[in-house]
Amino acid sequence: MRLDIGNALASVTDPGISTEELEELDNAVERAHDRIVEGMESDEFGYTSLNLPDSTDPDAIRDAVAGFEDSEAVLTVGIGGSALGAGTISDTLGSNGIRHEMLDNVDPEAIIAVLDELPLAETTVNVVSRSGTTAETLANFLVVRDAMEKAGVDWTERTIVTTGDSGPLHELAVEHDLPKLHVPEGVPGRFSALSPVGLVPAAIQGHDIEAVLAGGQTGKESLSGSLSECPAYAYGAVSYALDERGASINAMMPYAEGLETFAEWFAQLWAESLGKDGKGQTPARALGATDQHSQLQLYRAGPRDKMVTLVRARDRTDRTIPETEIEDLAYLGGTGLGELLDAEFEATEASLAAAGRPNVRIELDQLDEEGIGELLFAMEAACILAGELYEIETFTQPAVEWGKRAARGLLGGGEFEEAEAVASKEQHIIE
Amino acid sequence: MRLDIGNALASVTDPGISTEELEELDNAVERAHDRIVEGMESDEFGYTSLNLPDSTDPDAIRDAVAGFEDSEAVLTVGIGGSALGAGTISDTLGSNGIRHEMLDNVDPEAIIAVLDELPLAETTVNVVSRSGTTAETLANFLVVRDAMEKAGVDWTERTIVTTGDSGPLHELAVEHDLPKLHVPEGVPGRFSALSPVGLVPAAIQGHDIEAVLAGGQTGKESLSGSLSECPAYAYGAVSYALDERGASINAMMPYAEGLETFAEWFAQLWAESLGKDGKGQTPARALGATDQHSQLQLYRAGPRDKMVTLVRARDRTDRTIPETEIEDLAYLGGTGLGELLDAEFEATEASLAAAGRPNVRIELDQLDEEGIGELLFAMEAACILAGELYEIETFTQPAVEWGKRAARGLLGGGEFEEAEAVASKEQHIIE
Repeated sequence: MRLDIGNALASVTDPGISTEELEELDNAVERAHDRIVEGMESDEFGYTSLNLPDSTDPDAIRDAVAGFEDSEAVLTVGIGGSALGAGTISDTLGSNGIRHEMLDNVDPEAIIAVLDELPLAETTVNVVSRSGTTAETLANFLVVRDAMEKAGVDWTERTIVTTGDSGPLHELAVEHDLPKLHVPEGVPGRFSALSPVGLVPAAIQGHDIEAVLAGGQTGKESLSGSLSECPAYAYGAVSYALDERGASINAMMPYAEGLETFAEWFAQLWAESLGKDGKGQTPARALGATDQHSQLQLYRAGPRDKMVTLVRARDRTDRTIPETEIEDLAYLGGTGLGELLDAEFEATEASLAAAGRPNVRIELDQLDEEGIGELLFAMEAACILAGELYEIETFTQPAVEWGKRAARGLLGGGEFEEAEAVASKEQHIIE
Repeated sequence: MRLDIGNALASVTDPGISTEELEELDNAVERAHDRIVEGMESDEFGYTSLNLPDSTDPDAIRDAVAGFEDSEAVLTVGIGGSALGAGTISDTLGSNGIRHEMLDNVDPEAIIAVLDELPLAETTVNVVSRSGTTAETLANFLVVRDAMEKAGVDWTERTIVTTGDSGPLHELAVEHDLPKLHVPEGVPGRFSALSPVGLVPAAIQGHDIEAVLAGGQTGKESLSGSLSECPAYAYGAVSYALDERGASINAMMPYAEGLETFAEWFAQLWAESLGKDGKGQTPARALGATDQHSQLQLYRAGPRDKMVTLVRARDRTDRTIPETEIEDLAYLGGTGLGELLDAEFEATEASLAAAGRPNVRIELDQLDEEGIGELLFAMEAACILAGELYEIETFTQPAVEWGKRAARGLLGGGEFEEAEAVASKEQHIIE
């Protein structure tokens, strides 16, 4: 992975980071790295996420998916960190003829559409929940199981479970002898992509999950006490420093359709880890080149409250644009679509810099197994580093509990004072 | 459409709007409405967008798509405002068995995957570009035409063109006698959903495009000089006022998978129209309930720089969650997935309010033709109103031109000084 922060320097952009500030930041990175290494070595909650490239056993995943590789589809039933990592890896690497659908919401109309359309007898259900009690996931799983039964499909022959060492999903797996994988201990969902939580669909699709982990390993080996040697830490430190200087929004803008889900995964990682104590940079998801025709006007001419992260792979399969008789477009004929995309990437980057808007370039060699493994690991390390600099608790998500209790109370799942607050909503209606 | 701004009042949230401030805002809305009506009546550039529910001729669209309703797929080739409106309407209303794909990017790998997989002989190509020279759109169209020729499909029998009254696409349509629809005059792309630009795929899919326009008409009729009588203006005015008070980010969070593309459409509308002169609220796309497990932590406990817009339909098809033997989840059995989604909607809204975070509720009766027509019109009117309050030029997008010239220069399409700036990029590389 290659990071270029040239367009985040104070000599180019405002906000920007001066050379002196970069040196100060380097000292802070050294201290944070020591803390992170300590956490990794003692398998401390959260920090141990960075050990996954070593601790994840690909053979256990291969065993669990054995016999499912001839599926026509994989249906992941999970939400948040139990779905986005799997979606990211699978969408980056491509379907290989086995499509991957996710039920990561409880919209009945969408779920009915998916179930009506999937070949259930040839679909592998990949249900993921650490506790085995996540309301959305279990509700969806009950609906899927029911749909399979009604279609005459034995769901116990088509289901893989990834969960903790106890709880309803664990018990269900034992009772029906389902292939079962473990959610890793001490790893919050949003940091679990490089574990069975993220790797099952890719394994079924025939991707080289060992290479994904090897990519993570490359990232792990590059961790060091200086940001000038570690792209992951440099990204986290620069994002933090730009936020402190007013870039409170981080627009993650990959130039690859396959990385669209990655931008969503990043948004969860960043928002849920760093959005605490009134702090935290807000991730915005964008997609190049598409969003040049949508968000770029704002990024370039709106408030100076943003940094843009541009991501691309340096090698890809290209497709040549045919020659054309249209005079105004003759220059495109014979060019590759990928060359056009690259020109737009560089043009957007320069266009932001020319307007003094900070942006950072992340380049991978290829969007392959190693590339995505390294990218996911690097963003996790960047996030943990940023959490140290913000001095917040990176690995918790306390603010989401209130709403969970309220929803449960509303549905008759117990007495919760939060549910009463819902009933007393202040109204000011215009219709 | 029903708007509830109770959770944006200063008595509930910070930032928030006091009752006195709401009255002042109402005066500003009255003046802005007069300006907007003047623009509509004189068909002034941009303002005439709000006339589309009347000026769009559904019969012309029906004529153009006649014979294409038995397609297996529609492939829209367009980008930005030439794609997002069509995607939004089609994704909201559902495929009706005729899938809608969009080529709105120039990623060769994604395009190869789409073309390999589409039944080209049964696919209708819907190419949209006002000028007929948009680089991405024309490059993709040349590739699609080539793929059809190689597959032995006569592309001239399968292509509908929506463009201006001159230019290469117009000439192509004349030369090959293709069905041709007009991009409306005086309407920027992002305001053109309620025209042929947005309605062709829905018409092919058999949706009632007259009802979509009727929904827009309902929105038009509700425009009035007071925010207390016009939900669209109230939304624009409240968003503006919250931005002025620090809510520089507007998280658009529909609770319906079918509205995911709508959130993207909204992001373009808001960003490209209002992101000027250092002003403009940054749209963030979210999706309920999924993003409760991703963004909500930040929205509730991060910086007080956000408003959240929650959107839902009050009626929908539901699916019952089967009874379960799992004790902890027994409360879900017999409940509808839609009821669960509604409970989460209300819980999230209350959870934000309890943390003093402003949020606004938009409700439609149903996610049907009239509902989406009214919603799109209302957001356009809200945006134009906000543009008046910001005192910016809502209908232009000058900041995107720099990058277009740079990209063209890089590809040998002429001499542009912007391309030279790309070559002199400041580098600071970490790898």
